[in-house]
Amino acid sequence: MLLQVDLAAWRQEAKDVIYLDANATTPLLPEVFEAMLPWLREGYANPSGSYMAAKLARRAIDEARGQVAELIGADPAEIIFTGGGTESVNAALFSMDRLVEKGTAVVSSIEHSAVLRWVEAQPRVVTRVAVTPLGRLDMTAFGRALNGAAYVSLMAANNETGVIQPLQEAAALARERGIPVHSDAIQAAGKILIDVRKLGVDMLSLSAHKFHGPKGVGALYVREGLSFKPSMLGGGQELDRRSGTENTAGIVGMGAAAACMKRANHQRLGEMRDLFERNVLQRLTGVAINGDVSHRLSNTSHLSFEQCDAAGLLILLDEAGVACSAGSACMTGKQKPSHVQMAMGIPETQAKSSIRFSFSCINTHEEAELAAAAVKHAVEKLRRIQGGGVGPVVIYSS
Amino acid sequence: MLLQVDLAAWRQEAKDVIYLDANATTPLLPEVFEAMLPWLREGYANPSGSYMAAKLARRAIDEARGQVAELIGADPAEIIFTGGGTESVNAALFSMDRLVEKGTAVVSSIEHSAVLRWVEAQPRVVTRVAVTPLGRLDMTAFGRALNGAAYVSLMAANNETGVIQPLQEAAALARERGIPVHSDAIQAAGKILIDVRKLGVDMLSLSAHKFHGPKGVGALYVREGLSFKPSMLGGGQELDRRSGTENTAGIVGMGAAAACMKRANHQRLGEMRDLFERNVLQRLTGVAINGDVSHRLSNTSHLSFEQCDAAGLLILLDEAGVACSAGSACMTGKQKPSHVQMAMGIPETQAKSSIRFSFSCINTHEEAELAAAAVKHAVEKLRRIQGGGVGPVVIYSS
Repeated sequence: MLLQVDLAAWRQEAKDVIYLDANATTPLLPEVFEAMLPWLREGYANPSGSYMAAKLARRAIDEARGQVAELIGADPAEIIFTGGGTESVNAALFSMDRLVEKGTAVVSSIEHSAVLRWVEAQPRVVTRVAVTPLGRLDMTAFGRALNGAAYVSLMAANNETGVIQPLQEAAALARERGIPVHSDAIQAAGKILIDVRKLGVDMLSLSAHKFHGPKGVGALYVREGLSFKPSMLGGGQELDRRSGTENTAGIVGMGAAAACMKRANHQRLGEMRDLFERNVLQRLTGVAINGDVSHRLSNTSHLSFEQCDAAGLLILLDEAGVACSAGSACMTGKQKPSHVQMAMGIPETQAKSSIRFSFSCINTHEEAELAAAAVKHAVEKLRRIQGGGVGPVVIYSS
Repeated sequence: MLLQVDLAAWRQEAKDVIYLDANATTPLLPEVFEAMLPWLREGYANPSGSYMAAKLARRAIDEARGQVAELIGADPAEIIFTGGGTESVNAALFSMDRLVEKGTAVVSSIEHSAVLRWVEAQPRVVTRVAVTPLGRLDMTAFGRALNGAAYVSLMAANNETGVIQPLQEAAALARERGIPVHSDAIQAAGKILIDVRKLGVDMLSLSAHKFHGPKGVGALYVREGLSFKPSMLGGGQELDRRSGTENTAGIVGMGAAAACMKRANHQRLGEMRDLFERNVLQRLTGVAINGDVSHRLSNTSHLSFEQCDAAGLLILLDEAGVACSAGSACMTGKQKPSHVQMAMGIPETQAKSSIRFSFSCINTHEEAELAAAAVKHAVEKLRRIQGGGVGPVVIYSS
């Protein structure tokens, strides 16, 4: 098959690719892959079976449930495994939509499309709370929005800018008024400490493949005592909270990845990201760091390059062996500027010149330096081609 | 970890287990596992990315889409990948529920719980059409039920008895009246030829792990030209019909399994199943074959054992190294007799003495004979323990 040939060639090349798109997805860590293998081979039994092999699969799932629970400070019984982050988010919002009859849906204007598109599709009025120019929730506007709110959905950290949101403060305000809070922590988990009790949220969504687990598996935390209405109906798996034969290998992989994240070295991530940014900013003019650098995931760098079209930059960087994104992976190919940058008040021209670089534990300090050099060359080339020259130094925001 | 120790011990034992629960789930075929491996390792890129690695993942997904389409005679563009069979079924019914405002939901009384529980949860009136004592749709009752129907959902083959339903005839009746038809073909795919054009269905659900693909991935066929309203909202993947980062490895595995199924040897499956049944029936009295043997999946044997409690039999068979189920895997542990058997008019006592044996290509003729011998011993032991003796020969149905 043609594909096999391409893969073989690519494997050679892949070794030289500097992968800086961890916010789009991450590779399985070797220990995650190893943990999954038995369940892709001899451990195939349906966990609902009555025989020994089925009971072993069931036990492996429960072990993974404990590992995921531990990552976010929850009890295992509060964890529901799903088919991915989008399903977790949709399931959380479905439940709140159905259980709270009246009131508005309060979300930030920079939520992921899994939140925004869900709430917009419901008959309920939606309040999109503004963010500051640095991409953090406007707490004053949020406080006002709580009047007449049915529920709140607020992300823990933004997927594009990496800006960490004031979730604990926001959840406290909502709790005072008895308003349930869901948090999309898909981008935050494994990158900052998440403690559902401390945060005071009622539901929280996770996606395994964002923290070196497999694709196609996610989890939803549902606080004990909170009413929950399932959206996936069938065989009654997951204590009737999410039907469908359990994906044992995927769930075990998510558990193993969660366990790895407990030992993650966020400081090293920050060092690499800072080294990269320092190198880029020292070598190029007309570069802006978007988002609040004092409240930012340690792995994310969202940069705007004056007089550079992001689409062109991505092509040059791909050629140079640097994998990164303009905005979120979900937005690639769409010509609209990101709603996140629009919400931050970033001008359209700047928004269209923005690239997200996101690091993970597979990267090295050397790669950070090589990537910065590649960015410098790509930006300079593009500026020459596009004819604008380097132009005046304008730092858009920092 | 304790689990690792157990697994090692179990691997030894697993070699001797005769796995006759293929309708609950199937192991990955070696070629499916091999096809998945690159996408669990170096092929991790998010298929929505703009760089080369992402484009390779995208191409692999499209190749798998073609393989799944070919299995059911569809066009690739008509295939939506999902997170599993339950999601496929729920998504199909969601779409029909939202797009057809008025009318009843017409389903058979032996549908899987993914269908039954979905329709029962909607405000719409549900007509559960009766089946014959042999477990096939009552076509007269079905014809009547179509009056005022919004849509139909009818399984291609029943998961418990293996009885193949008159789907083509039923779909033709519905089509005459312009009523859309969804079919849960999860248990049929890979076991009988499925051709969506010939069947004349509008939507059809598949689950990879039922035909030697991975768990956690399914597909939904949506006929070209049919309006479809997506239930999973977010990044707009799958042409905006199912959001969520694509599970590349799972999807590739489903494609590879579909390709394998095109070459499946159904005759061999039937030989093994028949050999098993012949041996059981020759050696034991008071055994009934449930369901229409002239319209039955070649891999499935659903038997009732007079004066034997299924729960007890399962324990003895597990000890003897035979893995099988009472009813569907989803129903294990629930003490209620199966709704499928109830709908067939099988008395409760008989229903509670029923076991499903389901074969797959990993089985051998020798295993069929060994399993029959194990069944004979287990039934005789249980009849001795339960004190009833062998009793009069009563063939409940055949």
